[in-house]
Amino acid sequence: MPAFIDHVRIRFAHVDPAGIVFYARYFEIINMVLEDWFRDGIGHDFGILNERDRVGIPLLHIEADFMRPSFLNDIVEFRLTVEKIGNSSFTINYKGWLGEELRLKMQAVHAFVELTQKKSVPIPDIVRERMKAFMA
Amino acid sequence: MPAFIDHVRIRFAHVDPAGIVFYARYFEIINMVLEDWFRDGIGHDFGILNERDRVGIPLLHIEADFMRPSFLNDIVEFRLTVEKIGNSSFTINYKGWLGEELRLKMQAVHAFVELTQKKSVPIPDIVRERMKAFMA
Amino acid sequence: MPAFIDHVRIRFAHVDPAGIVFYARYFEIINMVLEDWFRDGIGHDFGILNERDRVGIPLLHIEADFMRPSFLNDIVEFRLTVEKIGNSSFTINYKGWLGEELRLKMQAVHAFVELTQKKSVPIPDIVRERMKAFMA
Amino acid sequence: MPAFIDHVRIRFAHVDPAGIVFYARYFEIINMVLEDWFRDGIGHDFGILNERDRVGIPLLHIEADFMRPSFLNDIVEFRLTVEKIGNSSFTINYKGWLGEELRLKMQAVHAFVELTQKKSVPIPDIVRERMKAFMA
Repeated sequence: MPAFIDHVRIRFAHVDPAGIVFYARYFEIINMVLEDWFRDGIGHDFGILNERDRVGIPLLHIEADFMRPSFLNDIVEFRLTVEKIGNSSFTINYKGWLGEELRLKMQAVHAFVELTQKKSVPIPDIVRERMKAFMA
Repeated sequence: MPAFIDHVRIRFAHVDPAGIVFYARYFEIINMVLEDWFRDGIGHDFGILNERDRVGIPLLHIEADFMRPSFLNDIVEFRLTVEKIGNSSFTINYKGWLGEELRLKMQAVHAFVELTQKKSVPIPDIVRERMKAFMA
Repeated sequence: MPAFIDHVRIRFAHVDPAGIVFYARYFEIINMVLEDWFRDGIGHDFGILNERDRVGIPLLHIEADFMRPSFLNDIVEFRLTVEKIGNSSFTINYKGWLGEELRLKMQAVHAFVELTQKKSVPIPDIVRERMKAFMA
Repeated sequence: MPAFIDHVRIRFAHVDPAGIVFYARYFEIINMVLEDWFRDGIGHDFGILNERDRVGIPLLHIEADFMRPSFLNDIVEFRLTVEKIGNSSFTINYKGWLGEELRLKMQAVHAFVELTQKKSVPIPDIVRERMKAFMA
């Protein structure tokens, strides 16, 4: 299985008055997963992207389905796979599991953008090659 | 125009190292718009829903498109309309404008859920009637 | 009374599983109050500070006392006064009231820092003069 | 050394437009450290406290000093020690280090409070005993 896997503990700061994860917090969480994947899966961390390469990867589109709530102290297993790699954009799938239970899934489209001109730029070849290893 | 309108100032806490709104913050912001609409547009605030009626409205599905970045101190005009009203679920459209520029749009599906049993319940008639006034 | 006043509604995103404001959210809230004060009280907004003047005002020290919890939909009145104005640092008092009830108080010390060198710089005279109007 | 230690990576979501940690995020971070300590150091997690024992530990007072900024991808070592154990309240010291550099320190006073009546209650003996192991 080519997925990148991250285990994320649900924290007090994630939980709403009904005792379940407030959905806005899931978007912070999947951004952490994306950071971890860039650093540990792709070998090219956000700091290098932003500061050295002057490139960002803003989100263009996201879809999310929330099937089951998550609770304080749950350790959710996030599985990231690459759905598609375009010229400057790429599409990521996230699934959040607790055991056999699928809690949520998301699909996100990001683009490589040069930070000064705010123009899209091609995905660097070395990044593109590494991304392929995570395609389903 | 049947939209519910909220003006939201972009805050320091919303902005990322690239100087633009971190997308996860937009989900907190549209939740504020939803709260304001329930209270001021529907006349039935989240506190009453949660505490008196023991009902929550968890998010089932959301899609978001980010066309243009927003910056510190921008005052984004959020326009909320109702796309669809089901038995226990409802679909909301959000558009965030700065002047003539569409910054983002989202579509969100929520359901009315009884908090103890975590089962979906019909949208109360009085809420349903008020929601209709915001259908496009 | 020389206080700068901001009314802040307690949002779903601020509230913890016990139904009260999670204290970390108060620090986001008082940063909003500080932003509003700089912009509307001092006439010198954070965007101008950061981008044009290349100056930031990092927090050096903060103390906070939480007397009473706040709840969803409470509209807390924040009163900001200036305690002290140094060469490059300044001290702010915040009090958060609901009616006659003091919910929290904070005291914060910030410094003017040039963003490239990360060195402290004197408070600009025009800012200093305006700050004086908010001293108790 | 009796400290409880947690290593926390600085995330994109923690960082402000000046490229350093936004101080409000540190309060979320130290709450995570407190959760980890309760669960792994004391053996009594927040979920048990809140749901089974119907007890919360609201923050009464906090002081924080920020000596040095932290940056994206820094892994800050947080060291938690117990300063004082009262009847229902306790005082925690936090220090955040990067190598030999002290980035921040905080001191926080919490109380055990019964959630229904919102009255302070004595610290359970078993918790008190475990806390002592972390006194400096």
